[in-house]
Amino acid sequence: MKKTEADMRVRPIGVIRSPFTEVAGMPIQPVFAKEAEGAAEVFPEFREGLRDIEGFERVWLVYWFHRAGEPKLIVKPFRDDRERGLFATRAPCRPNTIGLSAVRLLGVSRDGLRIAGVDVLDGTPLLDIKPYVPDYDAFPKSRSGWLDNPLRRTTSDNRFDT
Amino acid sequence: MKKTEADMRVRPIGVIRSPFTEVAGMPIQPVFAKEAEGAAEVFPEFREGLRDIEGFERVWLVYWFHRAGEPKLIVKPFRDDRERGLFATRAPCRPNTIGLSAVRLLGVSRDGLRIAGVDVLDGTPLLDIKPYVPDYDAFPKSRSGWLDNPLRRTTSDNRFDT
Repeated sequence: MKKTEADMRVRPIGVIRSPFTEVAGMPIQPVFAKEAEGAAEVFPEFREGLRDIEGFERVWLVYWFHRAGEPKLIVKPFRDDRERGLFATRAPCRPNTIGLSAVRLLGVSRDGLRIAGVDVLDGTPLLDIKPYVPDYDAFPKSRSGWLDNPLRRTTSDNRFDT
Repeated sequence: MKKTEADMRVRPIGVIRSPFTEVAGMPIQPVFAKEAEGAAEVFPEFREGLRDIEGFERVWLVYWFHRAGEPKLIVKPFRDDRERGLFATRAPCRPNTIGLSAVRLLGVSRDGLRIAGVDVLDGTPLLDIKPYVPDYDAFPKSRSGWLDNPLRRTTSDNRFDT
């Protein structure tokens, strides 16, 4: 059975816990949040799916930017002083407010995952967890456009907050 | 304004075009689909957001696994002969059927992006495009659990198709 657009609804499988309760001052990406520890709490009905995950050093958290404002197609990113096309940035104000972070997996706990390098707001709805697989995901030499020469800013302000 | 669960709906921003019209025989990940060229068609109302993207060598496609069956928490992945926890796999039958592929950006066309290394079905709804940024995304030495010794299978069969 083909799914239709009417079925395109997401639901939280858990909640991300982090030290960051305000948007301003948060690290912009996990790489700037190396020390920040937190958790990916997974609701009981989904925990069986965590089996075998402890062998992975990193996992992708797929989450819902629940504090993102209205979508904008042109944004001034945190790490630049020029406006850029939204899809050339990781800004949260997207048509689909889906966020993506590769975090370090510290261990599995009773209620989910203990993680480090968390760059998301405390209370963020978690949509999915995927294993980080270097064969699929790691392209260390990939050219990265305007981000090859970014501003040295590593924390956010509240420009995209609602 | 905080968004509520009632707002957690996604909508396509475009459609992925690929040579793959059937699930069986598809490459499992972009790394096994190096030669497969395709397109990320972006609907006209979102194209302004593609500005500046041509400087990136790769982009993340975030998409909706529109042919995924019912969610399963334990699956037998393509690359293993043992059952694994869903969140330790990239199988499509997830609570939120969101897929993720790092594809090579060949260029920007009138109606979206020309891409290579496409491992998704033709007609897949596109939810988001994000720039691939090695600083955020590339961890080439990351340990990858059971996938450190996977089966040598590189194409899928139809076990997760509906």
